[in-house]
Amino acid sequence: MSGHPGSTLLEGRHRYTLRTYYEDTDAGGVVYHANYLRFAERARTEALRDLGVPHSEMTASHGLIFMVRRVKLDYLAPARLDEALVVVTEPLALRAASVELRQTVMRAGTRLVVIDIQLVAVRVADGRPGRIPPRWREALLRLGAGQREG
Amino acid sequence: MSGHPGSTLLEGRHRYTLRTYYEDTDAGGVVYHANYLRFAERARTEALRDLGVPHSEMTASHGLIFMVRRVKLDYLAPARLDEALVVVTEPLALRAASVELRQTVMRAGTRLVVIDIQLVAVRVADGRPGRIPPRWREALLRLGAGQREG
Amino acid sequence: MSGHPGSTLLEGRHRYTLRTYYEDTDAGGVVYHANYLRFAERARTEALRDLGVPHSEMTASHGLIFMVRRVKLDYLAPARLDEALVVVTEPLALRAASVELRQTVMRAGTRLVVIDIQLVAVRVADGRPGRIPPRWREALLRLGAGQREG
Amino acid sequence: MSGHPGSTLLEGRHRYTLRTYYEDTDAGGVVYHANYLRFAERARTEALRDLGVPHSEMTASHGLIFMVRRVKLDYLAPARLDEALVVVTEPLALRAASVELRQTVMRAGTRLVVIDIQLVAVRVADGRPGRIPPRWREALLRLGAGQREG
Repeated sequence: MSGHPGSTLLEGRHRYTLRTYYEDTDAGGVVYHANYLRFAERARTEALRDLGVPHSEMTASHGLIFMVRRVKLDYLAPARLDEALVVVTEPLALRAASVELRQTVMRAGTRLVVIDIQLVAVRVADGRPGRIPPRWREALLRLGAGQREG
Repeated sequence: MSGHPGSTLLEGRHRYTLRTYYEDTDAGGVVYHANYLRFAERARTEALRDLGVPHSEMTASHGLIFMVRRVKLDYLAPARLDEALVVVTEPLALRAASVELRQTVMRAGTRLVVIDIQLVAVRVADGRPGRIPPRWREALLRLGAGQREG
Repeated sequence: MSGHPGSTLLEGRHRYTLRTYYEDTDAGGVVYHANYLRFAERARTEALRDLGVPHSEMTASHGLIFMVRRVKLDYLAPARLDEALVVVTEPLALRAASVELRQTVMRAGTRLVVIDIQLVAVRVADGRPGRIPPRWREALLRLGAGQREG
Repeated sequence: MSGHPGSTLLEGRHRYTLRTYYEDTDAGGVVYHANYLRFAERARTEALRDLGVPHSEMTASHGLIFMVRRVKLDYLAPARLDEALVVVTEPLALRAASVELRQTVMRAGTRLVVIDIQLVAVRVADGRPGRIPPRWREALLRLGAGQREG
């Protein structure tokens, strides 16, 4: 299977579509606030796969994983049961051992949650930061190409 | 959006594809056992939608929801991180106020978990069982049509 | 910290108390059905700790973990937000490489969910079943002592 | 049951103890990053209960709930399976319709994750912000009393 069926990369903009189910909601009738981090992780994983540089390959060939170092979530409007959401993933900054992404959860053109997340490349062996390998650097630059030009 | 992009209904056999992410796994390196119930719920929701009888419509027009009454899970082999899984949903029995389904989680033709689940139609107003409305009955019969003939 | 503060073992009967939070509920206003498996796992972990045979020690000293092989859940009544629940854990059967437990989730003396679960001792090294070590066998027998006599 | 057994309020400092289980971890062998938000919600709920102003009462008597408006998580070190963690909850700022808290997840005196969270009091009826009722204001001021004096 080549990537997730609802995952597309177009002009440096990655879009991941998902549905909300009972598992995602809480007794307030809305999506439980922590679950947007799960949606964001799914979108990042598929973004890397769609860019041709799966996260699992970075672990297998370089002994590195991306770990979440810092997150900021801004909740603008709630999602509810049985809605179609899109997570748009865009790069904010790329450094030697870390990358910062903006992931926006949207419903029909409306922004629901804006997530700014900093990921650090960490060596599985000793938990210390490592340089992001060239193939992943280039892919992450490609991810933002459309936005920077436009 | 018409249904989940990786969801198909073919000759009475519903298949729902999904990917496993870090959120689904545990420190044993495998998919956490409770999470197969989440996968099964996603598959059931998309099966009803693909059959043209979304669960949300049964609530909106009949004040009924399907509640889980009984489940049996048989864990045959573990799924791991970053795998493509398929949930096959087939009916086992249909009664006035309840339906029994078999949902099989598979990886590349291998059965990983077999889930037999009994759902009861329950009135939102008072929590008591209600008759499954005709449109849903017919759809659930259609779900199994292929198997019974073949 | 010696065990979970709301966890007690009395005459072979283990009781684990917990509270339900928004994270546990869904848009139906009740505890999401898969989450009872999380409650049951917490109770089993604390039962082994209270018996003096923590699960982590079985892994560290024998290279074995308990894996869920089969579960049956019977949902009798729903739990809701902000309720105090108790999980009672009792043994049903003990075999060379596996153990069967009944875990009953209760609210104020009323049974909500009955979970029958079969756990197999599995070698971390190769995923094959292994014999449950004597210390764990004896502890599991102790777990049921009260019931059998009474 | 009066509050969670591992929950204490001492000189304006609320401490909530918890254990990590398989459900909390991921295939990286650490606690999954989104789950710290679940721990923080448990701690906030018990803090309000220990202060004598349960969240459920604010809903029942004033039709208000606290909703998460903004969160910042700083991941300093990972928690692992079967660890005893403490969530310390302290107030940062109190406004007419919102409150800002710092929640620090600790293991044996070491800070693992620092969570700054802004909650808004929202009317269940129409989803609009409402004033935090006096009893809750006073309790939240009490929560910080110790720190401000020391």
